[in-house]
Amino acid sequence: MTHIDDRTLTSSGFYLSQEAPIHSDNPIPTPSSPAPDILRCAYMELVVTDLAASREFYADVLGLTVTEEDDEVVYLRSLEEFIHHNLVLRKGSVAAVAAFSYRVRTPADLDRAAAFYTELGCRVERRKEGFVKGIGDSVRVEDPLGFPYEFFYEVDHVERLAWRYDLYTPGALVRLDHFNQVTPDVPRAVRHYQDLGFRVTEDIQDSDGVVYAAWMRRKPTVHDTAMTGGDGPRMHHVAFATHEKHNILAICDKLGALRRSDVIERGPGRHGVSNAFYLYLRDPDGHRVEIYTQDYYTGDPDNPVVTWDVHDNQRRDWWGTPVVPSWYTEASLVLDLDGNPQPVVARTDASEMAVTIGADGFSYTRRDNEDTPEQKQGEYKLGHQL
Amino acid sequence: MTHIDDRTLTSSGFYLSQEAPIHSDNPIPTPSSPAPDILRCAYMELVVTDLAASREFYADVLGLTVTEEDDEVVYLRSLEEFIHHNLVLRKGSVAAVAAFSYRVRTPADLDRAAAFYTELGCRVERRKEGFVKGIGDSVRVEDPLGFPYEFFYEVDHVERLAWRYDLYTPGALVRLDHFNQVTPDVPRAVRHYQDLGFRVTEDIQDSDGVVYAAWMRRKPTVHDTAMTGGDGPRMHHVAFATHEKHNILAICDKLGALRRSDVIERGPGRHGVSNAFYLYLRDPDGHRVEIYTQDYYTGDPDNPVVTWDVHDNQRRDWWGTPVVPSWYTEASLVLDLDGNPQPVVARTDASEMAVTIGADGFSYTRRDNEDTPEQKQGEYKLGHQL
Amino acid sequence: MTHIDDRTLTSSGFYLSQEAPIHSDNPIPTPSSPAPDILRCAYMELVVTDLAASREFYADVLGLTVTEEDDEVVYLRSLEEFIHHNLVLRKGSVAAVAAFSYRVRTPADLDRAAAFYTELGCRVERRKEGFVKGIGDSVRVEDPLGFPYEFFYEVDHVERLAWRYDLYTPGALVRLDHFNQVTPDVPRAVRHYQDLGFRVTEDIQDSDGVVYAAWMRRKPTVHDTAMTGGDGPRMHHVAFATHEKHNILAICDKLGALRRSDVIERGPGRHGVSNAFYLYLRDPDGHRVEIYTQDYYTGDPDNPVVTWDVHDNQRRDWWGTPVVPSWYTEASLVLDLDGNPQPVVARTDASEMAVTIGADGFSYTRRDNEDTPEQKQGEYKLGHQL
Amino acid sequence: MTHIDDRTLTSSGFYLSQEAPIHSDNPIPTPSSPAPDILRCAYMELVVTDLAASREFYADVLGLTVTEEDDEVVYLRSLEEFIHHNLVLRKGSVAAVAAFSYRVRTPADLDRAAAFYTELGCRVERRKEGFVKGIGDSVRVEDPLGFPYEFFYEVDHVERLAWRYDLYTPGALVRLDHFNQVTPDVPRAVRHYQDLGFRVTEDIQDSDGVVYAAWMRRKPTVHDTAMTGGDGPRMHHVAFATHEKHNILAICDKLGALRRSDVIERGPGRHGVSNAFYLYLRDPDGHRVEIYTQDYYTGDPDNPVVTWDVHDNQRRDWWGTPVVPSWYTEASLVLDLDGNPQPVVARTDASEMAVTIGADGFSYTRRDNEDTPEQKQGEYKLGHQL
Repeated sequence: MTHIDDRTLTSSGFYLSQEAPIHSDNPIPTPSSPAPDILRCAYMELVVTDLAASREFYADVLGLTVTEEDDEVVYLRSLEEFIHHNLVLRKGSVAAVAAFSYRVRTPADLDRAAAFYTELGCRVERRKEGFVKGIGDSVRVEDPLGFPYEFFYEVDHVERLAWRYDLYTPGALVRLDHFNQVTPDVPRAVRHYQDLGFRVTEDIQDSDGVVYAAWMRRKPTVHDTAMTGGDGPRMHHVAFATHEKHNILAICDKLGALRRSDVIERGPGRHGVSNAFYLYLRDPDGHRVEIYTQDYYTGDPDNPVVTWDVHDNQRRDWWGTPVVPSWYTEASLVLDLDGNPQPVVARTDASEMAVTIGADGFSYTRRDNEDTPEQKQGEYKLGHQL
Repeated sequence: MTHIDDRTLTSSGFYLSQEAPIHSDNPIPTPSSPAPDILRCAYMELVVTDLAASREFYADVLGLTVTEEDDEVVYLRSLEEFIHHNLVLRKGSVAAVAAFSYRVRTPADLDRAAAFYTELGCRVERRKEGFVKGIGDSVRVEDPLGFPYEFFYEVDHVERLAWRYDLYTPGALVRLDHFNQVTPDVPRAVRHYQDLGFRVTEDIQDSDGVVYAAWMRRKPTVHDTAMTGGDGPRMHHVAFATHEKHNILAICDKLGALRRSDVIERGPGRHGVSNAFYLYLRDPDGHRVEIYTQDYYTGDPDNPVVTWDVHDNQRRDWWGTPVVPSWYTEASLVLDLDGNPQPVVARTDASEMAVTIGADGFSYTRRDNEDTPEQKQGEYKLGHQL
Repeated sequence: MTHIDDRTLTSSGFYLSQEAPIHSDNPIPTPSSPAPDILRCAYMELVVTDLAASREFYADVLGLTVTEEDDEVVYLRSLEEFIHHNLVLRKGSVAAVAAFSYRVRTPADLDRAAAFYTELGCRVERRKEGFVKGIGDSVRVEDPLGFPYEFFYEVDHVERLAWRYDLYTPGALVRLDHFNQVTPDVPRAVRHYQDLGFRVTEDIQDSDGVVYAAWMRRKPTVHDTAMTGGDGPRMHHVAFATHEKHNILAICDKLGALRRSDVIERGPGRHGVSNAFYLYLRDPDGHRVEIYTQDYYTGDPDNPVVTWDVHDNQRRDWWGTPVVPSWYTEASLVLDLDGNPQPVVARTDASEMAVTIGADGFSYTRRDNEDTPEQKQGEYKLGHQL
Repeated sequence: MTHIDDRTLTSSGFYLSQEAPIHSDNPIPTPSSPAPDILRCAYMELVVTDLAASREFYADVLGLTVTEEDDEVVYLRSLEEFIHHNLVLRKGSVAAVAAFSYRVRTPADLDRAAAFYTELGCRVERRKEGFVKGIGDSVRVEDPLGFPYEFFYEVDHVERLAWRYDLYTPGALVRLDHFNQVTPDVPRAVRHYQDLGFRVTEDIQDSDGVVYAAWMRRKPTVHDTAMTGGDGPRMHHVAFATHEKHNILAICDKLGALRRSDVIERGPGRHGVSNAFYLYLRDPDGHRVEIYTQDYYTGDPDNPVVTWDVHDNQRRDWWGTPVVPSWYTEASLVLDLDGNPQPVVARTDASEMAVTIGADGFSYTRRDNEDTPEQKQGEYKLGHQL
């Protein structure tokens, strides 16, 4: 772990460390069993309360391809995917997340996953036939942080539609990019997922060392999942990638044409963290979906860890656009293996929203002393004040 | 004039009329002298208090080309322009607008301009040698609404740099697109500028017929200038065009990199009115600059006039993003021909900000009854409420 | 007319003149009757031999909107159009062009059109009910160059779909931009269309003053129509505009996905002339369609005329990509008012293809002496030779 | 290895196999020593004959960042890179490639690299201080195919400029993407690089099983390097990535503005293989540089291998644009560890150019029988024939 004083300030206003400058005083024990070798985030299983409405949103509005469906479940994938699905919509009475599912490198990694979580005392369930269609032997667990994690290797291959430009829409989604999880104690979560083999690429801290969020990856992008500090376990969002920025703008334009612009919660904008271009939508159940493009390669073991000051007004939006409060406060429930919602535990560390927005928060655009106290009072631009 | 009941509702949620549905009960008299034949908005003369800072903003940050400069004045143009300048920055003690300048079709149109305004009782000044470098014979007036308007035909030609891609930046500005004026009584202003030869392309009204803003053109785009209802005469913004949307995003990215994202006031976004993609910046003196791309051809005489309901949440931003209050309230002073600021007269009609934002305002995304009263209380999205 | 020696060489390698440097020794007489006031090119009527195949190409592949259709005719428009159509496909036995149709400013311009062409001794036909659906009172003529020209003012309005982003495809066509006509004697044609009110914006010449092509406009873009030197009268192409360059690339990608890439004849590329980004396709009958975006404003009366040297290798493609021979040699027949093909007269002036491609042609990338003789032998790049 | 008859034809016209359908009858022995764990292609060292001209090309025209330089060597990197360089330009008398350099996962992988090649009988040189600035302990070898390969782990970190949008040009290069090597016997090369840990993602074959080219990856993109069948060992190209397609078009536009369009050898276009958007340039010594964007994720171990028919006219350009002959025939020499050019051995298998272009070659756009024999005679479009 890099000490806070050993970080390097860059010309872009954030800090670099060689190792993630995050320490947990309250760690989950590291199992002696080796972690499974995770390739990438592969799919999310969402419980939705109105299957037709959700199918319409993901297939007709966002243009995901339906691989297979029946009256209870719809399986969808992005245009460059060759495995059966990236998203499962399952009809249910409570909107929630049933699984964050990762693909592992080999069938043997399922044994490792089972042993790893068993050693941690977690509930583990393995099904040779899979929990959903298209997937074979799978392990699902209630992880130490309360999240329903799944691991699988066996999967039906379907045609990668990357070259089928006749099927592309102006806002075509080409890959599942990442998950984002809400958890009260970010350092504790980071330490646990490091044990599972994830590496930190970026984080947000304050000068006291409070960690507000951290981004972690297996595949060499900025993340396969991220930890967002807040009441949890909850699911913050699932993200799909487009090729170019205009594809994201086209989704907004289409939502306007459909008179459904109110599903746009935040963005489009440029992230500080990840340097990606982004948009956040809310599906018919309020599940948050990010559309995302153009982060950077992180695959070298010494890839520098980026740390943003929580008061840096460009950390979450490089253009300084304020984050809407709902983005901080709302998130989806997650289910245990019986399908019941996990209880939500309140965050006790400082809240990013509280320290940056409103009467008691402050943020700055420039690190120098040019900012007036007024400019420092809350993450708002010129004239945002009524 | 089309009666309000004869408008046609489109599938996009706005109304069409064959003639602008705007009537003034208090018109400025129509001169018997014919109006000059205006080609297009050509340049704005801005008084700036720190010439070096403004030059840096327009030339280094936004990439406009300096045609000519001295210690007191900088002349700038966009990449596709072949006349001497589209923007004049003049050093002065009070930030303000010295001229909204239009090019006319022939030298004889200057005589027409002089007669037109003389008949209106306006102060008129003509200079054979021009008021600024690069421009010849010119007429400047204090128009009936208090705006300093200029007309000229003679102008030095300079090289159109359209093909000089070695000079392009990622956010290259290629044309001056339009002006925007703040005036208390929009119907009165519209009627006067119709007399001057402008045609209405779009407007914003409420069901009582209050007109909040109107867009007017000579060249066949959505506007050469627009009337924004508010305390005036003031200058709301001057707009430059880019070729593509990513050029506008690149300006935001660059401002972030320069740690000057706080000059971004509003956007980027998609306008409802004009259908253009936009961004609003504030220059070092607070003069507002719009970056704009991709509106539509309006050159046919029967081009349908588009009327937006002031409560339509997508009228000013097609994606439903709220307009920041400063955008409604702040604007630049304009000067009389002696260089003194014109007094500002308060708008007495309803304020667009008041009727759409905050406790007493409301707006809707859909025209149907699906919107709950809560959704109708103020132009805010999901979770914008703290 | 600007004399060849009075042209100004620009830093981009072409010349500027204040007036078109084109003189005809064999002009068509200028009528004493005033020309009609043309607004813009409005639609082309194409005769196609397989209506279903053509409809599929224009509506399903290119995404034009069908306004109306029956067993014999299909009427199509672009997304930003508010008049009934921009393209008429009429079933017939010989693929050809039945009309180049222009919209005029007022109904009275139809009288002017009739008088103008009657004075020229042309065959003129006027129909109060129009020649096609959606259009009212119209004048069609066999013009002095043999082209079937139409003029109209009355037209049915239809909904402008500009805001209907739910209908956009990745390669959305938003406007009809221009026509292009093949004619043997370019100066003679230019002179005649100047009489009709068109202005030259650009042309291609050699040092002997031979004119190979010229671009002419009414609306303030680079052209409403162009004269391409060759055997004529024939129709070279009809062009539709997209908003951005990626839209044009998306059309290519889709044609690849449909395994119809062989309809791509030339491009995509950047034109030297017009500075626009372009693509040429061939429809099922071989009619050539250009997809075009981002030329420049030309509406000032003193807009400088651009002249390109025919040996400048970047004149037709700014990146120096060779023009394929078919683009020079193939074109569509045009019909007389009885529906019979007009006879084609051979060009006797030098052929642009002959002077630039192959053993006897040459072209240069740089005007200096750095180019070796080999580089000057034919419009080919490094390694194009087998 | 998947047998040719077990491949699956996709709806896009190419075949899928689970394992690369490539077999060598003449393999290089597989060492018993384990291969080093290669992370990614990291940099190429080019010998250039005019250092100033090459620096100008890569730094001023293409916009790569100079990390460090002296009179003999220039070190350049792309905007998202955090290691010292992606390209080394070294002044020398013969234009050639001095090293294809790969980064490995750990310092211990250098021992593995040394043992691996020593067992193969290759010349191996190790330098603790590195062969170039910025790099530490390195192993260079003359590999069994004659290529100068380098492996390193230690490297100086420099600032990743990803967020420095003030430094971006319209054609900004953000990553080194891949190398491409010319070698006579593709199956033999593939087998050897599989031994080194590379995986095949795509290849081009004919129905007799002749392999014309193959793409191989370590990082999860389509390739870190590719084998192009031809006289070798030679270097075909080095490729840099942009974020979007318009960035590549901007490079072409800039080259036109600089009157250097003749450095554009092929493209821009869409590849069939890789599905990426591309452009090929030639540097002042004729070294070929590709600009590349938007291939797909390949990191799963069962990622399907794509096989293209050599007669498929869309394999190398999805839009069917012919490949220029120089692209097939010209390539850069590679150096041995003494700095002398490796002798070039002729390919004896069929030549892709010969079987697809010209009198004896043929290709098709559609697999069906609709193509006439004429269409099948050579990879040319409508009218390419003079």
